[in-house]
Amino acid sequence: MKIGILGAGQLSRMLALSGIPMGLEFEFYSPETENCVSSLGKVTVGAYDDWAQLNAFASRCDVVTFENENIPFETLRDLDEKTVVYPKAKAIQQSQDRLVEKTLFKLLDIPTVPFRAIESRDDLMAFIEEVGYPLILKTRRNGYDGKGQYKIESINDIDNINIIGKTPLIVEKMINYNREISIIGVRSQSRDTAFYDICENQHVNGVLHKTLNKQRDPRMPLAKNYLTKLMNELNYFGVITLELFDTNDGLLANEIAPRVHNSGHWTIEGTVCSQFANHIRAIAGYQLGATDSHGTYEMINMLGKVADPLEVLSKPHQTFHDYQKTPKPGRKMGHIVTVLKI
Amino acid sequence: MKIGILGAGQLSRMLALSGIPMGLEFEFYSPETENCVSSLGKVTVGAYDDWAQLNAFASRCDVVTFENENIPFETLRDLDEKTVVYPKAKAIQQSQDRLVEKTLFKLLDIPTVPFRAIESRDDLMAFIEEVGYPLILKTRRNGYDGKGQYKIESINDIDNINIIGKTPLIVEKMINYNREISIIGVRSQSRDTAFYDICENQHVNGVLHKTLNKQRDPRMPLAKNYLTKLMNELNYFGVITLELFDTNDGLLANEIAPRVHNSGHWTIEGTVCSQFANHIRAIAGYQLGATDSHGTYEMINMLGKVADPLEVLSKPHQTFHDYQKTPKPGRKMGHIVTVLKI
Repeated sequence: MKIGILGAGQLSRMLALSGIPMGLEFEFYSPETENCVSSLGKVTVGAYDDWAQLNAFASRCDVVTFENENIPFETLRDLDEKTVVYPKAKAIQQSQDRLVEKTLFKLLDIPTVPFRAIESRDDLMAFIEEVGYPLILKTRRNGYDGKGQYKIESINDIDNINIIGKTPLIVEKMINYNREISIIGVRSQSRDTAFYDICENQHVNGVLHKTLNKQRDPRMPLAKNYLTKLMNELNYFGVITLELFDTNDGLLANEIAPRVHNSGHWTIEGTVCSQFANHIRAIAGYQLGATDSHGTYEMINMLGKVADPLEVLSKPHQTFHDYQKTPKPGRKMGHIVTVLKI
Repeated sequence: MKIGILGAGQLSRMLALSGIPMGLEFEFYSPETENCVSSLGKVTVGAYDDWAQLNAFASRCDVVTFENENIPFETLRDLDEKTVVYPKAKAIQQSQDRLVEKTLFKLLDIPTVPFRAIESRDDLMAFIEEVGYPLILKTRRNGYDGKGQYKIESINDIDNINIIGKTPLIVEKMINYNREISIIGVRSQSRDTAFYDICENQHVNGVLHKTLNKQRDPRMPLAKNYLTKLMNELNYFGVITLELFDTNDGLLANEIAPRVHNSGHWTIEGTVCSQFANHIRAIAGYQLGATDSHGTYEMINMLGKVADPLEVLSKPHQTFHDYQKTPKPGRKMGHIVTVLKI
């Protein structure tokens, strides 16, 4: 079976590294000229509307998946007519627009932060009247790792933002929370589900810095309940991640990532079947693998540059993941997993 | 860093799959036209005395290792002058000849079965006089998976063997044992050592069928002691395996495999740092990773054909490894790991 992946970054790399042992083959399609998967299968460099190349790619793949939810909906929808795309394009569409996503939370009775669509300064002022400061203004589409986000703490901040009315926006009330957490789940084509431990995440400048898995976290039942509702509503196949704020008043859903997630990298070391292997099992039509963790793991992203492997691997309970990317300030270059307790 | 591997079978495949996540690159050199690593790096098809090709291969690699100890000693020795070869050729030489290997056991006070070099029928008859039947006659070189072995239970069996005096042979007394076990160890360039759980192995027709790791096996201290003596004597760098018979009178060393071993495949699922990852860490000059097992694992080889992944992966605690080889009767095509207890 050949699996095609849209995108050629580290998530694609780790997906392929999990699927090759099962005897699966991989191909990649990406608009970027640089990739970190060239040793793992054929890479096609092409735009997401280059149908000559996309058709050829699809014709060689039994199933296509992706590492990034910002691929145009139309590409996923039309590719699904040439071959099979999992997760389904419709599921992705919901998470591509922050307003649609938050509306879905409300529909499913999943608590989320107060929000409103913003088309004008008047919209924003009305929302401030209602909920007060501080707020965070976000582009509805194509934001990730803190990009396209503007913090608003006073009227002065609003004067400095020049995109209101020019692009679809959403404003959210910034709330106090005790922890940022994520839950990663997977749903198979036979509708079975499995969940990894709750992850506690620390961000620096909007980018994930550190993750710690929490065995038997008290929020697990509620988080699992919310993610199950989402997976069923979206008729989702594959791995999906829900980011939440843990507050004194309970959990508030922040956003969905319809894919394997940076906060789940520890599952490679920490479980029988990692998030990557389970995504492959789900989209290939296999049953799900066991998601129970062996212990407590800390994952740290290497941003901008990789550490010295001699130093990282001087500790027997550390592993070193180097994505072989060209260094750029702030870029996710690799990660380190430390086994804290087994 | 680029690592070159002599051989392009499943052991090379699993070595590369363990090293790529660390940011290492791989190349392979093999006399066979078929391989199961072509998606993981460049493969050169060439003989082990084709120095035009071997030189070019060596010039592209920072360190060279191998998946099979039956590579000519001269190839390893001369390659080590062009680049670095780990483990060292001299260490391999000892295990390439069953007589030299058994003599090494005696030198190090590691108990082994009674044996004698056989150059003539008279040599054999003298040994029978001394120890009786049953015996096993083996070619001194190039035997593996039961190949080049002749069981002798009576004088009639001897009459049917026509290679005596034509090739270097060793005869060994067949002894009663309770278990066939193996211990896999690894030694770093800074002379640190680490060991995986004792493995209980079941063979069918001389080929490994099933392995079970045994946490806290009572034979562990003794097996570890024997393997430590061997690693130090050979000044060994990398993973090495010692196969032993567990008898009422203690452990008897059977043979050394100077490489990652089929009985250690469960370490991919069962430890923080698998035998493959630790071999890479050792030869790349890193410190060793943790070898403690998470629980009890059963590994079963798929011989001759692969099972249906839909069936194997219908169990959440099973993983499926397909080497993508062309099926042949008895050939190692893949393996299945079942987590029995974590």
